[in-house]
Amino acid sequence: MTPKISQFLADEQPATPCLVVDVDEVEDRFRRLQGALPLALIYYAVKANPARPILERLVSLGSRFDAASWEEIRLCLDAGASPDDISFGNTVKKVSAIQAAFAVGVRLYVFDSLEELEKIARYAPGSKVYCRLLVDNYGAEWPLSRKFGTTVESARELMLHARELGLDPYGLSFHVGSQQLSADAYEAAIARVASLVTDLSATGLDLRMVNLGGGFPIRYRDDVPEIEQFGDAICSAMTKHFGNALPEMLIEPGRFIVGAAGVVSAEVVLVSRRGREDGPRWVYLDIGRFGGLAETEGESIRYDIRTQHDGGAVSAVAIAGPTCDGADIMYERSPYVLPDALAAGDRVELLSTGAYVSTYCSTRFNGFAPLTEHYI
Amino acid sequence: MTPKISQFLADEQPATPCLVVDVDEVEDRFRRLQGALPLALIYYAVKANPARPILERLVSLGSRFDAASWEEIRLCLDAGASPDDISFGNTVKKVSAIQAAFAVGVRLYVFDSLEELEKIARYAPGSKVYCRLLVDNYGAEWPLSRKFGTTVESARELMLHARELGLDPYGLSFHVGSQQLSADAYEAAIARVASLVTDLSATGLDLRMVNLGGGFPIRYRDDVPEIEQFGDAICSAMTKHFGNALPEMLIEPGRFIVGAAGVVSAEVVLVSRRGREDGPRWVYLDIGRFGGLAETEGESIRYDIRTQHDGGAVSAVAIAGPTCDGADIMYERSPYVLPDALAAGDRVELLSTGAYVSTYCSTRFNGFAPLTEHYI
Repeated sequence: MTPKISQFLADEQPATPCLVVDVDEVEDRFRRLQGALPLALIYYAVKANPARPILERLVSLGSRFDAASWEEIRLCLDAGASPDDISFGNTVKKVSAIQAAFAVGVRLYVFDSLEELEKIARYAPGSKVYCRLLVDNYGAEWPLSRKFGTTVESARELMLHARELGLDPYGLSFHVGSQQLSADAYEAAIARVASLVTDLSATGLDLRMVNLGGGFPIRYRDDVPEIEQFGDAICSAMTKHFGNALPEMLIEPGRFIVGAAGVVSAEVVLVSRRGREDGPRWVYLDIGRFGGLAETEGESIRYDIRTQHDGGAVSAVAIAGPTCDGADIMYERSPYVLPDALAAGDRVELLSTGAYVSTYCSTRFNGFAPLTEHYI
Repeated sequence: MTPKISQFLADEQPATPCLVVDVDEVEDRFRRLQGALPLALIYYAVKANPARPILERLVSLGSRFDAASWEEIRLCLDAGASPDDISFGNTVKKVSAIQAAFAVGVRLYVFDSLEELEKIARYAPGSKVYCRLLVDNYGAEWPLSRKFGTTVESARELMLHARELGLDPYGLSFHVGSQQLSADAYEAAIARVASLVTDLSATGLDLRMVNLGGGFPIRYRDDVPEIEQFGDAICSAMTKHFGNALPEMLIEPGRFIVGAAGVVSAEVVLVSRRGREDGPRWVYLDIGRFGGLAETEGESIRYDIRTQHDGGAVSAVAIAGPTCDGADIMYERSPYVLPDALAAGDRVELLSTGAYVSTYCSTRFNGFAPLTEHYI
């Protein structure tokens, strides 16, 4: 939690649940990532947090943008981004969305199937396209692999076909999975991409870009490798496989840029044992899986939690949200402890919640309004 | 799909994704449930679908309401419900919510812990209270058990304590899990409740109510037992255990009342194989787990899907939503087949989606607006 967020929470005591994001911290994270990967063009993954103050700050820093939908493209343009700096990075796009994006000047599109490629050729003629490869997501805490990406053999055919369709066969992409803890995953994927680039070059098709995706991890409860380690590993792998003929390198960070810049302030609604003295206490917060903390599904992302009683005696807890839904349990198997003094009405802070929280929030499940957001 | 919904979709071709609910069907379902359990007071579980036209129709039919939050209580009152007909049915309530409910005249509250009981005693003095028991959810497709309910021993103490606190110790509740396919689950729970009622009666505390919860199943892709079977089983079990001294019986149906009354109309965004000829086709819709179909988590609820090509040749598919999130896969392991002729741009209908869809929808994940709703 940054000093600015601590001060804001102390001074304002904003109604809970709410998300507070320090936009200066967003800038620091952007600069640090750019320092770790100086050759990479940063396309911020808008889906991580599309709030206007974040997009505007990133525009001012020269960031580019990875948009998942026409609506996200619109948000980027409204925040001052140029269409030249936007990648339409969803492999699944409605025709109407491609048409709208093309009309405002977006010229960079991803695909991973023949059907999508043909849509792009028809509704965004002449655009740059890149093909997403299926790669291993081993090591990622929020894996993505099964839904996206095609095989090397298929990508090869599709890139050649893209040229025949009058598109600009620009490059290849992959995604090693979100909150990826292992730099090896990038190295393995780069090797795979490089081999296909070499192969296509032999047929006279020179690709000029490699999109390394995102997935760079941040600290939740446990330490993660520093971003410089990922930078070094990626740089070494790119040099090893491409030598002096380095292609353009794109990255699509979301969590790394905004995750650590945000804090959710919540209220304890109930602490109880419900008649089971041998079990953990159950702590119910006024935010849960359907109020924005969707990445706690399967207890995948384990947020660090601060309370006003930190330092006192602690014991095991299960942690759940405020709805009547039995699935609205955040942590039951993960070894969480919280202070024995914790009681209903206390405020708690969930750290590093700037990414993938505000937009996952349900419209009104169980009647609870979406969490409010403060950008400071 | 009711004829009225078919007609509406054909005539209006509403923008997708959208939910269309036939409010007359809601009425039919209410009447049928009342017929199957004539002695039960129906408290509609507002969380299933809190839309104003549904609440108003149910008010006109004499329904009562099970509210999960102060906001849901407000919706019921706005739709014309009397505070006497509202149960605040969430075992986890903010003090401010109890205060607000008490101020407008709500006098029926659930609890499952000492801490919550003390909150109710303080902020809703003299109210009727009932204690939720933990029961087995075996047989439910959307189980609820771990988060709610206390032990029989604890419930006994708490009900006696409720009297000491000046509350009206009114009854006991349980929930056998949502989309519960086995009537046995109710019978076992009723036996458990009856034994505690008898035990408390011996100490001079006569409980007057048993809340049987909800969970009554509806047909998705497979047949389920008819509601009359549940009615008969519940009636037999109540008579067996309580004899002539039948307590008031409350039920809290949500899915049963509104589920079958709704249809989601969606668009196919992409059908692809992504280079894997041996695997299923992947069908991407413009609605997925974060657009409202949250109950497809773990492939728990398997909706029946209709297309304009039904009757033609079919083959295996995986079905996913439109976002860039790898978790946004609805069906990959469940054996779904769809017509080979299905293509991007086609409309499909997901049947029996009237419950637990509109409110689970995320505010704007990946930029996609919440689905629109039509009540006809």
